[in-house]
Amino acid sequence: MRSNDRKINELRPINIEVNYVKHPEGSVLITVGETKVICNASIEDRVPPFMRGSGKGWITAEYAMLPRATEQRNIRESSKGKVSGRTMEIQRLIGRSLRAVVDLEKIGERTVWVDCDVIQADGGTRTASITGAFVAVVLAFGNLLKKNILKQLPVNDFLGATSVGVLPDGTEILDLQYEEDSQAHVDMNIVMTGTGEFVEIQGTGEEATFSMPQLQTMLGLANEGLEEIFKIQRNALGNLAEAIDKNKENEEVTGGS
Amino acid sequence: MRSNDRKINELRPINIEVNYVKHPEGSVLITVGETKVICNASIEDRVPPFMRGSGKGWITAEYAMLPRATEQRNIRESSKGKVSGRTMEIQRLIGRSLRAVVDLEKIGERTVWVDCDVIQADGGTRTASITGAFVAVVLAFGNLLKKNILKQLPVNDFLGATSVGVLPDGTEILDLQYEEDSQAHVDMNIVMTGTGEFVEIQGTGEEATFSMPQLQTMLGLANEGLEEIFKIQRNALGNLAEAIDKNKENEEVTGGS
Amino acid sequence: MRSNDRKINELRPINIEVNYVKHPEGSVLITVGETKVICNASIEDRVPPFMRGSGKGWITAEYAMLPRATEQRNIRESSKGKVSGRTMEIQRLIGRSLRAVVDLEKIGERTVWVDCDVIQADGGTRTASITGAFVAVVLAFGNLLKKNILKQLPVNDFLGATSVGVLPDGTEILDLQYEEDSQAHVDMNIVMTGTGEFVEIQGTGEEATFSMPQLQTMLGLANEGLEEIFKIQRNALGNLAEAIDKNKENEEVTGGS
Amino acid sequence: MRSNDRKINELRPINIEVNYVKHPEGSVLITVGETKVICNASIEDRVPPFMRGSGKGWITAEYAMLPRATEQRNIRESSKGKVSGRTMEIQRLIGRSLRAVVDLEKIGERTVWVDCDVIQADGGTRTASITGAFVAVVLAFGNLLKKNILKQLPVNDFLGATSVGVLPDGTEILDLQYEEDSQAHVDMNIVMTGTGEFVEIQGTGEEATFSMPQLQTMLGLANEGLEEIFKIQRNALGNLAEAIDKNKENEEVTGGS
Amino acid sequence: MRSNDRKINELRPINIEVNYVKHPEGSVLITVGETKVICNASIEDRVPPFMRGSGKGWITAEYAMLPRATEQRNIRESSKGKVSGRTMEIQRLIGRSLRAVVDLEKIGERTVWVDCDVIQADGGTRTASITGAFVAVVLAFGNLLKKNILKQLPVNDFLGATSVGVLPDGTEILDLQYEEDSQAHVDMNIVMTGTGEFVEIQGTGEEATFSMPQLQTMLGLANEGLEEIFKIQRNALGNLAEAIDKNKENEEVTGGS
Amino acid sequence: MRSNDRKINELRPINIEVNYVKHPEGSVLITVGETKVICNASIEDRVPPFMRGSGKGWITAEYAMLPRATEQRNIRESSKGKVSGRTMEIQRLIGRSLRAVVDLEKIGERTVWVDCDVIQADGGTRTASITGAFVAVVLAFGNLLKKNILKQLPVNDFLGATSVGVLPDGTEILDLQYEEDSQAHVDMNIVMTGTGEFVEIQGTGEEATFSMPQLQTMLGLANEGLEEIFKIQRNALGNLAEAIDKNKENEEVTGGS
Repeated sequence: MRSNDRKINELRPINIEVNYVKHPEGSVLITVGETKVICNASIEDRVPPFMRGSGKGWITAEYAMLPRATEQRNIRESSKGKVSGRTMEIQRLIGRSLRAVVDLEKIGERTVWVDCDVIQADGGTRTASITGAFVAVVLAFGNLLKKNILKQLPVNDFLGATSVGVLPDGTEILDLQYEEDSQAHVDMNIVMTGTGEFVEIQGTGEEATFSMPQLQTMLGLANEGLEEIFKIQRNALGNLAEAIDKNKENEEVTGGS
Repeated sequence: MRSNDRKINELRPINIEVNYVKHPEGSVLITVGETKVICNASIEDRVPPFMRGSGKGWITAEYAMLPRATEQRNIRESSKGKVSGRTMEIQRLIGRSLRAVVDLEKIGERTVWVDCDVIQADGGTRTASITGAFVAVVLAFGNLLKKNILKQLPVNDFLGATSVGVLPDGTEILDLQYEEDSQAHVDMNIVMTGTGEFVEIQGTGEEATFSMPQLQTMLGLANEGLEEIFKIQRNALGNLAEAIDKNKENEEVTGGS
Repeated sequence: MRSNDRKINELRPINIEVNYVKHPEGSVLITVGETKVICNASIEDRVPPFMRGSGKGWITAEYAMLPRATEQRNIRESSKGKVSGRTMEIQRLIGRSLRAVVDLEKIGERTVWVDCDVIQADGGTRTASITGAFVAVVLAFGNLLKKNILKQLPVNDFLGATSVGVLPDGTEILDLQYEEDSQAHVDMNIVMTGTGEFVEIQGTGEEATFSMPQLQTMLGLANEGLEEIFKIQRNALGNLAEAIDKNKENEEVTGGS
Repeated sequence: MRSNDRKINELRPINIEVNYVKHPEGSVLITVGETKVICNASIEDRVPPFMRGSGKGWITAEYAMLPRATEQRNIRESSKGKVSGRTMEIQRLIGRSLRAVVDLEKIGERTVWVDCDVIQADGGTRTASITGAFVAVVLAFGNLLKKNILKQLPVNDFLGATSVGVLPDGTEILDLQYEEDSQAHVDMNIVMTGTGEFVEIQGTGEEATFSMPQLQTMLGLANEGLEEIFKIQRNALGNLAEAIDKNKENEEVTGGS
Repeated sequence: MRSNDRKINELRPINIEVNYVKHPEGSVLITVGETKVICNASIEDRVPPFMRGSGKGWITAEYAMLPRATEQRNIRESSKGKVSGRTMEIQRLIGRSLRAVVDLEKIGERTVWVDCDVIQADGGTRTASITGAFVAVVLAFGNLLKKNILKQLPVNDFLGATSVGVLPDGTEILDLQYEEDSQAHVDMNIVMTGTGEFVEIQGTGEEATFSMPQLQTMLGLANEGLEEIFKIQRNALGNLAEAIDKNKENEEVTGGS
Repeated sequence: MRSNDRKINELRPINIEVNYVKHPEGSVLITVGETKVICNASIEDRVPPFMRGSGKGWITAEYAMLPRATEQRNIRESSKGKVSGRTMEIQRLIGRSLRAVVDLEKIGERTVWVDCDVIQADGGTRTASITGAFVAVVLAFGNLLKKNILKQLPVNDFLGATSVGVLPDGTEILDLQYEEDSQAHVDMNIVMTGTGEFVEIQGTGEEATFSMPQLQTMLGLANEGLEEIFKIQRNALGNLAEAIDKNKENEEVTGGS
């Protein structure tokens, strides 16, 4: 039995509070167990220099933790004057994942800035960020639809993320909290679409390795967990969830990329 | 009449939610109208090099805004690789103010790190930060008392802050929200103790000036507002508020500095 | 009695040497007791991006100390690769103060760069910088008048600054030299116009507080000192001083901002 | 058919030149098709602060490209004053991978610095770096054995890496060169041990996704390619390869970590 | 006798391998004894801002060492976030030297980026860089000639560099390897044209001095060595060497600058 | 005839004002024509890490210009957050030159910080800095002698610097002012000891070259100018000049390095 009496294939309780901060076009507070992340999506009416004139938009993400989101206080990255390798990896992952389900051509020459700020950390902050950021981005597009800036929701599918791992005793588990994460031999983050396609797999055996059968078990657990996560996103999004479904159907019919 | 139907000497609604984040020794979410700031106080068991061996403690503050706390998204200071002059001014002000009411000798060679992170901004973020940070710091000391690390609450008085200003039509007002702040001819921040002594006065007439009578009116408004603020802090602190009162009485009797 | 046999309301000897460096449009060496600051004003024929197209000009200030301007050598900020919070506060203060008496519309889309470099420090370097910078800026405008680049001196009033404070024994004093400054319980910088309006008040009780009556006494001392300072500026400026007086009269008549 | 007439499961020609640079404890030049990377391993007789007193060693990696290793010249990261997110991701990956097969306890409190400098890039620089760095690190340990600084080769298994991907037409291929990499819908890097365990899987569908069957095909291709790579490493290492085999056998017998 | 049995006026063996890296317009690997430097010349179709509209081109150089090019590993300058004073001096020297023999007007508004990356260091890296960079730059121009982008080779003369010095026993020697360089009392770098004119003389007596006769002897040795170096460059350049000779003759006739 | 009616072998008027700033151990204002540099020497009671335990001292120099020391205002290096290549070259040159005539063993484990701050620039700022810094350093040692911290003046000879160059018409001249410097084809800085030995020669033909006879003429001019400069230093130093002479005689007798 895991701490919190969780089963090996059981997610922590997840809550998504929409419209959390008033200024951004899309904003949510996502809570996964004791992990809390504010995800804000801001729309800017231009794209970075390398995309100008392409007619396409761009999505970029930034990730940070409040200094005391963790057990020990971390030095603020603005004070150190540079962003750590870990932060860069995470923000590149979030941006890449979101771009896989958003139709960048449909948003025109606009940039979506996604800010994921961890208020409280207890493991799984990067996957919570992706799950929450997806909802924030859809909300932002929903606002552009209301204002007639966009004609159509430029989102082709749901997108969620969770972690799986292997405990020292060899048990594969779903959704690691900090205490589990810090002792796990393998740590794997899976980003998937609502249709069950992979967007990103990042599996690491820090000072350890893992076998093909272990990989298969972990992929199965992730799949189960993500089914649950897509339901929670669906509830948070209301009508916008249906618009995504419709886009998905159209795409399947027309065989879009 | 001001927007929100406020009177010229009327504060916005203030709420202080204690123990907001779980890891820090002291943590509050302070809400002043639409302005929201997370104030976390962390205790570290050592002091900066220039104070080692002094037997005294230190309090230092950091301040930041989420990129989309404001109407327009701001570039994250960690991405720019440096902290702006405005941020530095504010964090120096918060630290200096707190040190005025905390007895640094009684905390031993420890550092209190105060992190004020603005989640949503609508004017007055620096004064809200001071008001909230004071409560977070007292809560942190309260925790050290419970663990018998400290014998006595090392806080001599209450500490709060508010802003006053002069509107273009010459009216002096209390507690400026963003819309007022951006047009005001004079902007003044007042930090005061519960006994009505000044800790800091910062008055600025950006591209304008102000007269002695205007200064006097503003000081009066600040005084009124701060009476209200001390009551709200008192409610948030419960028993710890009484311990501060006792320290204050002792000090008046013994004439301590 | 204070060191140097000064009375509590007595300034240190002040000298302003005009045209000190040959290249800048305006240049002075200001000496306040043992404090010496070179103030250079440079005119650039464009404004920062956020003001382009506004038809208005801008004034920005930079402040630095030679590494050995002080008793102990300080590390050069260019070597550290960043500007300290103290430096940023001071340069923001100098710029803001100057902008309060200069008519930015009359200078057109030009930037005035004010460089205050402290050659020797003995307390009061920021107030000496403001007092000296005002003269340098007026001299620079005087040169633009001679060259017919400006038609009218764009300066509405005199501007000076001084410090006041409270010694440990409770005495309020004017114009603190370093030895006094380092022990004072309260340190307050006052920036005023020639007509006696406040431009900026910054009063700090580092690890101490001050009362309303102490504030009033300090404001009175500052007022006295600044009367003296305006006379010294007037002498240094010659004919240009009269042009300022005329602008002031016109403004009072027309009720300009 | 792929460019260069390669089959879908065919690696580019790989060459490993040992002792390439004279100063490092271990040094190789690895060539994978047109990709060339110098991998140097340096031994330092101390560990980073967070490991002092642990009795264990550490391996850390740095990665860089010469500015003109690529088709277009890149700005040197030392000139920009900061390391890009991509570089950080790669150097974290290289270090983590090597630590999975090295017994850090057996190297004592020493740091192995691995420098991977790309002289010429044509796709697959990060996987070539890992494959080459493994050989350089083993050579470095071999030198410590000769000097009797180590008693035993602290390496438990071979370690290699390669890339797999999916072309726009849906074909899964092994070992992508630049031209293929730039159009692939999926890009996956696999790091494996000589015994066929995974050390790291990083699969990314940038603006695309991939299915479970595609994942399985790609894992199979990687496996095939890595068999080949381990043979090439074995040839380059000579006697040291046998010492690794012996460690592997012992570990299997004793069930080491 | 010197180590390696060299005579005092004897260069180390020099080899120049042309077209070493495939992407740059010009690329060589120069080997001087145990010192190895990759010199790449890249052509960019624009000039830095200060030269725009001048019709002239520019040459700029960057220099770096692999961290383990030296006996002890050096921290990578990109990790330190800044370029050292030594590196800056060297890259300024390389750029300046090349500009002395290239006709910047003839290359139009283009920038030649010269990258000198030291793979292995054993003294004389900056002079080897200049000698190699000259060949790389000529090769790059040769490529522009072939593509008809340039009409004429814009190079007026050969350019080479070597070092001379004074050993502790007072002997003047040519081409110092690291062991000699580290004990020499005087270290002098000489950059010369094929016609025997000086481009740059940098002589330093670190914690020592040198006399006029010593200077004369050193200049003579440098002259001898450079004769040899120009022959090696000539061999490496083939037909392009003759084109330089022709330019030189024309210039002598017309008295060009 | 040169501007200012100077002869080709004529220095500009030089003045050295000693004890210019009150805090440093040694301080001068050197004026060479219109070039003015404050040179401060500070003594610190420890050496940099790489010299600890050596029993020897160290001299390090920093150089900067006030932003408006020049015709056009330069951006402050502290604002840019990095020191330019030119500045680094100059400060390395100043430090190296001073170390050639100071006996580092005699100063014990102390660091001499030399700060050269250019107040007004008109060519020759680096050579004026060396000439002035030498006097400041000797004054600083003089103060340590008075306080009995040193027993003996640790200076073996005089040290001065000047520039020579070649005008576009081929004339070799001494001590270039800015107007001459900006058009000269060759610019050479010579640092010499009072006994006529070279400490440093840096000759550069930016986009030009120079011949052996031109070099000889320039060296002769420099020699003449430096004779004059040593007389001016001698006057400024008074008794301390005689102490240097005595050290020089002793050294010649004992043949010290």
